[in-house]
Amino acid sequence: MLTQNQIKQIRSLQQKKFRTELNQFVAEGPKLIEELIDSKYTFDCVYAKKEWIDNHSEKLLDKKISSIEINNKELDRISGLVSPNSALAVLKIPEENINMEIFGKELILVLDNIKDPGNMGTIIRTADWFGINHIICSESTVDAYNPKVVQATMGSIARVNIHYTDLEKLFSEISKKTSIYGTFTDGVNIHDVEADSKGVIVIGNESNGISTEFQSFIHKRISIPLFKTNDKKRPESLNASVATAIICYEFRKIK
Amino acid sequence: MLTQNQIKQIRSLQQKKFRTELNQFVAEGPKLIEELIDSKYTFDCVYAKKEWIDNHSEKLLDKKISSIEINNKELDRISGLVSPNSALAVLKIPEENINMEIFGKELILVLDNIKDPGNMGTIIRTADWFGINHIICSESTVDAYNPKVVQATMGSIARVNIHYTDLEKLFSEISKKTSIYGTFTDGVNIHDVEADSKGVIVIGNESNGISTEFQSFIHKRISIPLFKTNDKKRPESLNASVATAIICYEFRKIK
Repeated sequence: MLTQNQIKQIRSLQQKKFRTELNQFVAEGPKLIEELIDSKYTFDCVYAKKEWIDNHSEKLLDKKISSIEINNKELDRISGLVSPNSALAVLKIPEENINMEIFGKELILVLDNIKDPGNMGTIIRTADWFGINHIICSESTVDAYNPKVVQATMGSIARVNIHYTDLEKLFSEISKKTSIYGTFTDGVNIHDVEADSKGVIVIGNESNGISTEFQSFIHKRISIPLFKTNDKKRPESLNASVATAIICYEFRKIK
Repeated sequence: MLTQNQIKQIRSLQQKKFRTELNQFVAEGPKLIEELIDSKYTFDCVYAKKEWIDNHSEKLLDKKISSIEINNKELDRISGLVSPNSALAVLKIPEENINMEIFGKELILVLDNIKDPGNMGTIIRTADWFGINHIICSESTVDAYNPKVVQATMGSIARVNIHYTDLEKLFSEISKKTSIYGTFTDGVNIHDVEADSKGVIVIGNESNGISTEFQSFIHKRISIPLFKTNDKKRPESLNASVATAIICYEFRKIK
């Protein structure tokens, strides 16, 4: 039986202000929670229906994760989903310090002011697919621990490290250590760019692209070409997570 | 000044039942409405703030589109968006008959039970980018005139033709006229598939992939390879709209 205060506190984690204050976030649904159990994340507690707890009792014991049995009504009250599913976990937001050694050694994504939670989650999922371990975000980028982001990662948040930092400072520090690629409408056709397994790929904001103040740090401007047709009216851009995926796909073709 | 009945009717278009009954859908925001004005779509009416109407009066007259001036409060009441923006249009859902001549002549997308409105909208936007004019959907696929889909297309719904049909019947009819590609986890690496500007690409449901009953119609099973790493835990799949984009990108590389 949950107290009103517990319910209130869990629900407050839907908002960034309270996530920051409590240094916690929520993840919902069996698949996502299972992926997080097998990860670096530290659990505060899993709130779940009896069946889920029974099925996971060994694992919870093994990982020293505490759990509280709840009924459907309580799950509905603490959940942020339209259709809550069996379990909700409260986890600690990890402290992520950037190890500067990764630059020049790995393929890294930098997100400059990505705003849409769905895009953010999909980018994390895509990075995981393409074996990218680190995503570095401007402070203005949507919070990766926003529940909509966490759900859209489909568990990939368990594996990809997310850092928030001052990008200007970062770019100044890494600009001589690694190649920095950025997506622009007038860049080199991505078909013709040589794939680079150690570079940094900068993805700009959904509406405005890469911030003006960062553009001088970009070594190579790249573009996904618009397929030519005879139609007068054509789209202006691709969705940010789609563009990220196509670029990651091209960069990861090297064998 | 809108009547209660007008407000109720416009708001009802958020639901599929009423869209079907009235054969209408809504589109919101200046950019989207401008793209639709320059398209095949027939407008019922544009509800907009004074400034928008003043700026578009010539175009509205030229295209014989009627408009009603509304204030902020009225816009809030008819809008389905969190932050309504200047104008909302009510349009007719077009009748889309499939011209069977397109098969074997164009690159076409077939969606088998895509459920997420955001994915659907992003797929329509991506198809537009890659010059794909027709998307054919199973009857179970999310309604393309769902306001969330319409918004996510960022105007591309103005250009891409969307058809809903019985896929089994369609596949039987086209299977000898065109190559049918489908995405599977065990298909041929998409890197190694020869691009085909006249084929049909089938995209399956977000959780379950291509329906069992359609699998025998697929001539070529294709896959986007998971990048190999030493980590034990890896993602199971890519987001459906991301996978669609990578495949379209590969198919459209032919010059």
